[in-house]
Amino acid sequence: MGAAAEFEAANEQYVQVFNQGELPMPPSRKVAIVACMDARVDPAKELGLSKGDAHVIRNAGGRAIASIRDLIISQQLLGTREIVVIHHTDCGMLTFKDDELKAKVKSELGQNADNIAFLSFSDVEQSVVEDVDALKKSGLILDVPITGYVYDVKTGKISKVAS
Amino acid sequence: MGAAAEFEAANEQYVQVFNQGELPMPPSRKVAIVACMDARVDPAKELGLSKGDAHVIRNAGGRAIASIRDLIISQQLLGTREIVVIHHTDCGMLTFKDDELKAKVKSELGQNADNIAFLSFSDVEQSVVEDVDALKKSGLILDVPITGYVYDVKTGKISKVAS
Repeated sequence: MGAAAEFEAANEQYVQVFNQGELPMPPSRKVAIVACMDARVDPAKELGLSKGDAHVIRNAGGRAIASIRDLIISQQLLGTREIVVIHHTDCGMLTFKDDELKAKVKSELGQNADNIAFLSFSDVEQSVVEDVDALKKSGLILDVPITGYVYDVKTGKISKVAS
Repeated sequence: MGAAAEFEAANEQYVQVFNQGELPMPPSRKVAIVACMDARVDPAKELGLSKGDAHVIRNAGGRAIASIRDLIISQQLLGTREIVVIHHTDCGMLTFKDDELKAKVKSELGQNADNIAFLSFSDVEQSVVEDVDALKKSGLILDVPITGYVYDVKTGKISKVAS
């Protein structure tokens, strides 16, 4: 059985206990979180989120500079007025260089990925600092509080590294 | 107190109960999920995910065509071999047209967003079908099972609309 069929079975159970009522579309805590897609990361658990609280944007690495589209929609259409960026220890983005992945895509898929910025990094604190700085300098992002953290996958702890 | 400070306080509590041990970097269920950043959506709860199970990619709308970068990294470097795409009812992406948001960015921020594909849509089932189809046709994505669902924010139920 593939994951999709397992998800359908799990969802049948979820529907039985679903009782969140009708929540409004705009996030009640007016915050957008950018975090990594990593399987060991779950921002709702780590930050104490309830449904309806916050936009949760997740991509490879939690690179905020890859989520400008999402942050514009979050701020301009859904009223968020704070951003939190979280990268994490032992991230897959630390294990390769963009050029290596582009070469792999070329050799294994026969495709050119030269126009894709994979945004790998070699220092997880530095990547958070860079992302927060880029957001603060972007004319497309409102002048709102922006805080950056590193999440430790071995302890569950977030540590502030930029604001 | 801003959301960041509240998250720090909530995380202090989380660290006390953190007991997931050391999980490997590759998702154990070898699946990547693409879902919306919406505050009312929480794929871990809705699909029965535990930490370590799956990559969870989230953006505005859950548009898989905006997550090719992330899916390449997920498949080529971290071994996922299945994709699940989930959009949802009452999505913010149904409430605007790309041109309207570009005009708003121009008038309110004085910035040109013409090069950004916001990927708004007018039919949530159709947007899932389009995303699944685009992934199946992309030479950058492996030939793996891809299933598309619509999540109903009023009932908690997922309904399959593409595979």
